[in-house]
Amino acid sequence: MKDRKFRVSEFIHGADYNPDQWLDMPDIIEEDFRLLVPAGMNSATIGIFSWNKFEPQEEQYNFAWLDQIMDRMADAKMKVILATPSGARPAWMDKKYPEILRVSSERVRNLHGIRHNHCWQSPYYRRKTQQINQILAERYGKHPALFMWHISNEYQGECHCDLCQKAFRDWLRKKYHNDMKLLNHEWCTDVWSHGFGSFDEIESPSNRGEHLIHGMNLDWRRFVTEETLDFFQSECVPLRELTPDIPITTNFMGQNMDFNQWKLAPYMDIMSWDSYPEWSMGRQQDMDAAIEASFCHDRFRSMKMQPFLVMESTPSLINWRTINKLKRPGMHELSVVQAIAHGADSIQYFQWRKCRGEGEKLHGAVIDHYGKEDTRVFQEVSRVGELLGKMQTIAGSDTDSKAAVLYDWENSWAIEDLQGWRSPRLYLETVYQHYKALRKLGINVDVIDEETPLDKYRIVAAPMLYMLRSGIAERLKQFAAKGGSLILTYGTGEVNENDLCYLGGFPAEGLMELAGLRAEEMDVLCDGEYNEIRLSENNKIYQADSYCELIYPKEGCEVLAFYTDDFYAGKAAVTRNQWKAGACFYIATRPEQKYLDTLYQQIAQEQGMELLWGILPEGIDLAVRRTETEEYYFIMNFSGESVQMPLPKQLQNSSVFPDDKAAKEIYLEKYGYIILKD
Amino acid sequence: MKDRKFRVSEFIHGADYNPDQWLDMPDIIEEDFRLLVPAGMNSATIGIFSWNKFEPQEEQYNFAWLDQIMDRMADAKMKVILATPSGARPAWMDKKYPEILRVSSERVRNLHGIRHNHCWQSPYYRRKTQQINQILAERYGKHPALFMWHISNEYQGECHCDLCQKAFRDWLRKKYHNDMKLLNHEWCTDVWSHGFGSFDEIESPSNRGEHLIHGMNLDWRRFVTEETLDFFQSECVPLRELTPDIPITTNFMGQNMDFNQWKLAPYMDIMSWDSYPEWSMGRQQDMDAAIEASFCHDRFRSMKMQPFLVMESTPSLINWRTINKLKRPGMHELSVVQAIAHGADSIQYFQWRKCRGEGEKLHGAVIDHYGKEDTRVFQEVSRVGELLGKMQTIAGSDTDSKAAVLYDWENSWAIEDLQGWRSPRLYLETVYQHYKALRKLGINVDVIDEETPLDKYRIVAAPMLYMLRSGIAERLKQFAAKGGSLILTYGTGEVNENDLCYLGGFPAEGLMELAGLRAEEMDVLCDGEYNEIRLSENNKIYQADSYCELIYPKEGCEVLAFYTDDFYAGKAAVTRNQWKAGACFYIATRPEQKYLDTLYQQIAQEQGMELLWGILPEGIDLAVRRTETEEYYFIMNFSGESVQMPLPKQLQNSSVFPDDKAAKEIYLEKYGYIILKD
Amino acid sequence: MKDRKFRVSEFIHGADYNPDQWLDMPDIIEEDFRLLVPAGMNSATIGIFSWNKFEPQEEQYNFAWLDQIMDRMADAKMKVILATPSGARPAWMDKKYPEILRVSSERVRNLHGIRHNHCWQSPYYRRKTQQINQILAERYGKHPALFMWHISNEYQGECHCDLCQKAFRDWLRKKYHNDMKLLNHEWCTDVWSHGFGSFDEIESPSNRGEHLIHGMNLDWRRFVTEETLDFFQSECVPLRELTPDIPITTNFMGQNMDFNQWKLAPYMDIMSWDSYPEWSMGRQQDMDAAIEASFCHDRFRSMKMQPFLVMESTPSLINWRTINKLKRPGMHELSVVQAIAHGADSIQYFQWRKCRGEGEKLHGAVIDHYGKEDTRVFQEVSRVGELLGKMQTIAGSDTDSKAAVLYDWENSWAIEDLQGWRSPRLYLETVYQHYKALRKLGINVDVIDEETPLDKYRIVAAPMLYMLRSGIAERLKQFAAKGGSLILTYGTGEVNENDLCYLGGFPAEGLMELAGLRAEEMDVLCDGEYNEIRLSENNKIYQADSYCELIYPKEGCEVLAFYTDDFYAGKAAVTRNQWKAGACFYIATRPEQKYLDTLYQQIAQEQGMELLWGILPEGIDLAVRRTETEEYYFIMNFSGESVQMPLPKQLQNSSVFPDDKAAKEIYLEKYGYIILKD
Repeated sequence: MKDRKFRVSEFIHGADYNPDQWLDMPDIIEEDFRLLVPAGMNSATIGIFSWNKFEPQEEQYNFAWLDQIMDRMADAKMKVILATPSGARPAWMDKKYPEILRVSSERVRNLHGIRHNHCWQSPYYRRKTQQINQILAERYGKHPALFMWHISNEYQGECHCDLCQKAFRDWLRKKYHNDMKLLNHEWCTDVWSHGFGSFDEIESPSNRGEHLIHGMNLDWRRFVTEETLDFFQSECVPLRELTPDIPITTNFMGQNMDFNQWKLAPYMDIMSWDSYPEWSMGRQQDMDAAIEASFCHDRFRSMKMQPFLVMESTPSLINWRTINKLKRPGMHELSVVQAIAHGADSIQYFQWRKCRGEGEKLHGAVIDHYGKEDTRVFQEVSRVGELLGKMQTIAGSDTDSKAAVLYDWENSWAIEDLQGWRSPRLYLETVYQHYKALRKLGINVDVIDEETPLDKYRIVAAPMLYMLRSGIAERLKQFAAKGGSLILTYGTGEVNENDLCYLGGFPAEGLMELAGLRAEEMDVLCDGEYNEIRLSENNKIYQADSYCELIYPKEGCEVLAFYTDDFYAGKAAVTRNQWKAGACFYIATRPEQKYLDTLYQQIAQEQGMELLWGILPEGIDLAVRRTETEEYYFIMNFSGESVQMPLPKQLQNSSVFPDDKAAKEIYLEKYGYIILKD
Repeated sequence: MKDRKFRVSEFIHGADYNPDQWLDMPDIIEEDFRLLVPAGMNSATIGIFSWNKFEPQEEQYNFAWLDQIMDRMADAKMKVILATPSGARPAWMDKKYPEILRVSSERVRNLHGIRHNHCWQSPYYRRKTQQINQILAERYGKHPALFMWHISNEYQGECHCDLCQKAFRDWLRKKYHNDMKLLNHEWCTDVWSHGFGSFDEIESPSNRGEHLIHGMNLDWRRFVTEETLDFFQSECVPLRELTPDIPITTNFMGQNMDFNQWKLAPYMDIMSWDSYPEWSMGRQQDMDAAIEASFCHDRFRSMKMQPFLVMESTPSLINWRTINKLKRPGMHELSVVQAIAHGADSIQYFQWRKCRGEGEKLHGAVIDHYGKEDTRVFQEVSRVGELLGKMQTIAGSDTDSKAAVLYDWENSWAIEDLQGWRSPRLYLETVYQHYKALRKLGINVDVIDEETPLDKYRIVAAPMLYMLRSGIAERLKQFAAKGGSLILTYGTGEVNENDLCYLGGFPAEGLMELAGLRAEEMDVLCDGEYNEIRLSENNKIYQADSYCELIYPKEGCEVLAFYTDDFYAGKAAVTRNQWKAGACFYIATRPEQKYLDTLYQQIAQEQGMELLWGILPEGIDLAVRRTETEEYYFIMNFSGESVQMPLPKQLQNSSVFPDDKAAKEIYLEKYGYIILKD
Repeated sequence: MKDRKFRVSEFIHGADYNPDQWLDMPDIIEEDFRLLVPAGMNSATIGIFSWNKFEPQEEQYNFAWLDQIMDRMADAKMKVILATPSGARPAWMDKKYPEILRVSSERVRNLHGIRHNHCWQSPYYRRKTQQINQILAERYGKHPALFMWHISNEYQGECHCDLCQKAFRDWLRKKYHNDMKLLNHEWCTDVWSHGFGSFDEIESPSNRGEHLIHGMNLDWRRFVTEETLDFFQSECVPLRELTPDIPITTNFMGQNMDFNQWKLAPYMDIMSWDSYPEWSMGRQQDMDAAIEASFCHDRFRSMKMQPFLVMESTPSLINWRTINKLKRPGMHELSVVQAIAHGADSIQYFQWRKCRGEGEKLHGAVIDHYGKEDTRVFQEVSRVGELLGKMQTIAGSDTDSKAAVLYDWENSWAIEDLQGWRSPRLYLETVYQHYKALRKLGINVDVIDEETPLDKYRIVAAPMLYMLRSGIAERLKQFAAKGGSLILTYGTGEVNENDLCYLGGFPAEGLMELAGLRAEEMDVLCDGEYNEIRLSENNKIYQADSYCELIYPKEGCEVLAFYTDDFYAGKAAVTRNQWKAGACFYIATRPEQKYLDTLYQQIAQEQGMELLWGILPEGIDLAVRRTETEEYYFIMNFSGESVQMPLPKQLQNSSVFPDDKAAKEIYLEKYGYIILKD
């Protein structure tokens, strides 16, 4: 078992709990504690937005209410995940210290309100958050109920105030060694007379000013990442000092691109994220949502290569989409099992009890405004609590993956920011396609970025790797050289990490040699427009959309498929180039899923990987967790229909978990699942 | 006949008249006075935007031109509706007193221009409008042509300047008895650390700052309502004092939601509104437009329970839609008859003569730029003038309604502002459905708000009554207890008047008992997605869209229809609960119109109401006005096709008005109508 | 041959060349000079955005790099088109002189960045641009490589700073002879109390303030036009003085409406524009793009009635559309031939070599990042270079047109700004329809504005001539009186040049007499909605869309077609009125292209014009250039399919150019063309 700073001993089942909204209704709080038991809860996240309750006037504190709650939590054997309150501020603070308020990219300072509305640099705010965190650590650091620190809430956004401008310039000075010439070169500022004479002339990107220097745009996002990390670390100082044994996390938003989440991972004791898939929008959308959810689970697991927490989820409704549907009966349990299957060690809810007012009052919660436990939602949560209780042997266990999909944050910034190609770009959508093709083989898949070591994998898919950050090209070559199968696509290796185009041909940095070809031109298709590819092997035809790169394979590079249409009909569309012990596949277009499924199956077979079911039926998710002694196979049915599958011979001796019956043919009802222990 | 401050003695047929645009072309003004007669006009609204002509420089006045016009109007026996000019200002005023200019919610002060661009609080502007109104009252108060005051024009919008911020805070201090704790409770500010420590910390809602405290958003709209009313009353001071016998109105915009129009009604001597239905966009749209127009007519009548004025309409074109079609021949007359049928005592046009320049130069008018009377439009107006002349016995008569539809402004604000459910919300669209079902029974319908007394009705439809303002729940219960039929729907009784969710179950405030059920969850459907309901009575199936609430009827509550689809198939969708002498119907979903038509017919029959034609054919509008001695049945054909209807026995002895022939079988041409006097 | 200041002696084939982006890579520059020859280049445009390279710090200049490049260009016999660098500025300049930065119509000053971001009035910037231009003229004015001045780059946009406000007011003072009464009359400010008491009260149009005074909006655009011209002239002062023999141009954007391009034409020595048609989006779009491209070519030729330059084009990709497709093989050559056919004397590219960074790095260029000449794009450019070399006898030759289409900039502003009718307005689209009908007759067509003399034409199409600027109505009448065929449509003659509606009937200014009818009402149709017209002559039916004006022909006016549908079925839709020696056609609706094709064929036949092929097949472009001795017929196939056409007897003796074989039956491959010399 891997060594980790932090490992849970049981699955955490809990919710954001805001007793500070109910202090004037003690009966409600009594009821809360009564209902924790039937709900099967063992944890509560407290204090996320409680600053105004902690410090209603400047330096006048009130913790009596929390003292009581903490004590009652301890009595109830509940784990408290205690939040630092920096996500929102009391009004008095913004009024007295307006420097805290964020300034937009249009250079207009916000007014007080909502949340996530603070300057990352504000010296006052940094001091003040440290101060309140210190008080919390001093007061509750040794409290038996304290289980974990939850830093702030869903960090996001950016500030363009003068303090941030200065910090950005200082950050640039450091990155570019105080050398304007270097900065001008990397940002390619000879275009449009954009050269800067001094760092003092630089301002953050803005639609009111400069926003077409892509190198600057990228550096701004990197700076915001470091600023966010720096703020996070500043929050942690008193906690690390006073409570060195209490683990720290912050809850990330799934695909929020404001900052590069990967850069924060090393500073977390455990990753956690807020998971809100869009269920109930139809059969296909449920299957897509399952892919997207598992992708995120796999990513958060891969960021530290250890289990993670689902820090928020809804037991029923979301309230911020255009159409907010109920979770269908059974879907809650299924999606909980999916999270666990992909490496989660917790299921937590936003929130325990619906608030009475403001924007989130109609968001799902364990307890409705109605207040009693005889609701469908409470009953489903209760069943999940019971289930998790029976599954404790799995808690904290590992995941072993032989395949990885590379989805790189900075590459995503660069792709979205480029001018050209087509809109929408479909980077994430394409990554999902490759991820899905791998997942349908029933193998665990890591979701990695350009900095992740590749040694443990046998298959790495790196679609649309437009930007090559330092070292990645070399690592990909080594990966293939050592026998790995690498999958690249159109649009690969065009710019360096500062968005400067490579000279000498694409894909650059030695990838032309690795792929055995040169990519010369990028043609694109409209939405709904298609070309086709024909396989060399069997003349089968598959649709291809969105991108059709024109590639020129070198001698020895095998052409697996050709375009059938347009002026490049007959030219290579998919190739395979042997590279020492391994191979590099290059997919110059965006073929339909079915082709990717087949291709990845062939690749896995080339790699000698044993597939339990070949290509899984659409909508079936299979993931495996491993303890020191057992493997748990989670087979989950998101297809919206019942599914029957034979038991493969490798699992003939497995048993159904947690019931411990012998496994037979697998029959999954709609939204059903089965766990096999082997 | 009811007692009213103001009752017309003849139908008013007139137009906005802007001679101040033509002072340099005296021939045009001569022609205007010549053409009043063939156009059949008896009134003119003058001076709406004349401030710059009255006071071209500060305190240098010029009324000579208006003196002349007023005298000529008196000579021509024309009624002058004299406007106060506050809707727009001379440029010198904004330049010298920029405090007048509005500040947007982004806190940016407007520049001079357009109209509706003043701060409601500006002390200078209030003084200045009183001053100019006083001069008008002094100069023309006893002029024989003066018929009515037209205060400003289409009040709308809001200001966020410092004066308004202060006024908002003072308004909150008063509403919440200077008690921050009360305000914090009602606004539920314990969410997201939003608690305010003092009133001085509060700022009006803004996308740059706070906008998710729904209680604050609602209070802001209420404050804007009171500000608007206060400005209106400030304008009236000199008029009430100097011309106590001259009635006062202001022209409202149909469904403008900026302020709660109902709150101004008590201060009007007569309601008036500007009616611009979207005709000519196809058969179905004409029928829909007819429903929407009659709904608004009925609302403005219901706001004072007396006849109202159509203060603006177009004789032909509108110029501000994406597609601006001509009114088809005959549609103008038909829409005039509809207004009269629903309680209008006037038809007035924007405008008499097309202006030569600026934004409205291509808006329809009685006289075209062409200038002569041999146009299609002039001829249609002329026929209307003739018709109104023959119908004078109806002028000022009453409307008697036994049914009402409740459409509440503040509830609409709350529904639009809530986060959750689905978008679009369809509140107004749903109210239209219920209104239409009642109208198709051929019965008069009032359109009321939550404050309107219910005693006179036998049927009250209150769809989507999400917010229960003080007293409404009790009044609904009493209404049903005394024998009334009440229709409620999904989404009812969830929040109090400050948008705080009720605890203990929906619909709250005793409505669970009244409806005989509890509503637990709200599922929603996408646009174009459907469930169905099946009637208990006869297994008939009807489509249902948009909302599917999950309700749990109590014992004794009769289930009229069940869902047929999704996981709640077989659960109750429509119920009827006997409540003392009356009944409460609860429609948990949004069934197609046909079902509502049938249901309302059954309800009317239960109430023993005699329906002349059962359910009227699609597109047929029937409304009844009553003088002391007669009833006038207006039967109007908006269907786009000719329609034949039998004469019901109750009207066998009626005569056709104004021709006075005996009524026979009713044959209505496309856009045709008939008026029966009984 | 016409007398001109400037006439090319050979076709110019070149590109924007930015060696200043590659100064640190001398090998690249060596390679550039090597590749000029195989690419067939004879010119380069240099220095467009080089200010920061010229003057990296205030008044510290560096021209060494350009000296070298100029010398090498001279050695290589290349023509250098030297740009003034005002299109973008060094950062130090904006930092030190922020007055340069543009202020938006919202009155917010921009930050430094992008391009086109300067105030047209800034005294500092005007001085500074003159200074740098003077230095360039002094340094390179006598350099053998200097061929032409390229002033700035794609002038565009506007500024609303205080300096511009003042200049606008001064401009208005001059236009309105310091007479507020006159301004108020022309702007029709009696509407909405908009009258101004003094020029000082006026501010430029803004969404934050006044924007509905159409006369003001128009004057603002005229002012911006004159400001832009004035800035251009200010740039030219040192160049005209020091290099009187070097021709001057600036590169215009195709249909950019920011200022009236026509007003600048008299100050150009040769017109030039940047041509970026949207090729490769399907067969129909290619044919449409060909029409739009030829329309723009014809317009730039007509603006000075002499050949023009294509200053920018792409050899392959564009990078700023949503979908950026490759130019299909052959399309580049075909589009080059089209430009030449319509009067171009150059083909130049943006750009020579793809830049490494910033927004345009993925825009097509002659040399790819790859860097070598064995690319498809380089080869196609190379073939074009060869072709142009063979066609030199045509360079500088004239175009003779007997037909013109009137597309007026100020009319376009007025139509877009009007409130009413329908959106989209379809002015340009309708002009294209008429232009296309004429082009399909195989005759040269000029594209003119309201100020262009009409004497040389026999057919003038003036669709949607809503605004009649001074003199145009009279000129149209004279044109018809002398035997011309004039085509007018719905929406003609409604406002004068200040957007004031004419009184007395439309089309005004004597056009009612000319057309023999009065237009009374404008009905409009939704997108996808149709009426039909039936021809009097043969009962043929054609669709009509978007606009259906109701017209009343006078006696003697012949009705060519009637509406078939709606309440105006049977009313006149198309008329012909004899007017002395000529005729005026009035098309009251928007018939399908096929009808216009037929109608224009009839008109041409009436005019006794000999048509080589009657109506050309769809997608075939035919244009004729004439030297002193020969005529060159360019027949081009944009249809996406091969086309066969007979050789008309008039061209029996022609030869194929430049091969000089006898012409036979014409067979054009997809994207093929043939040039016949006669």
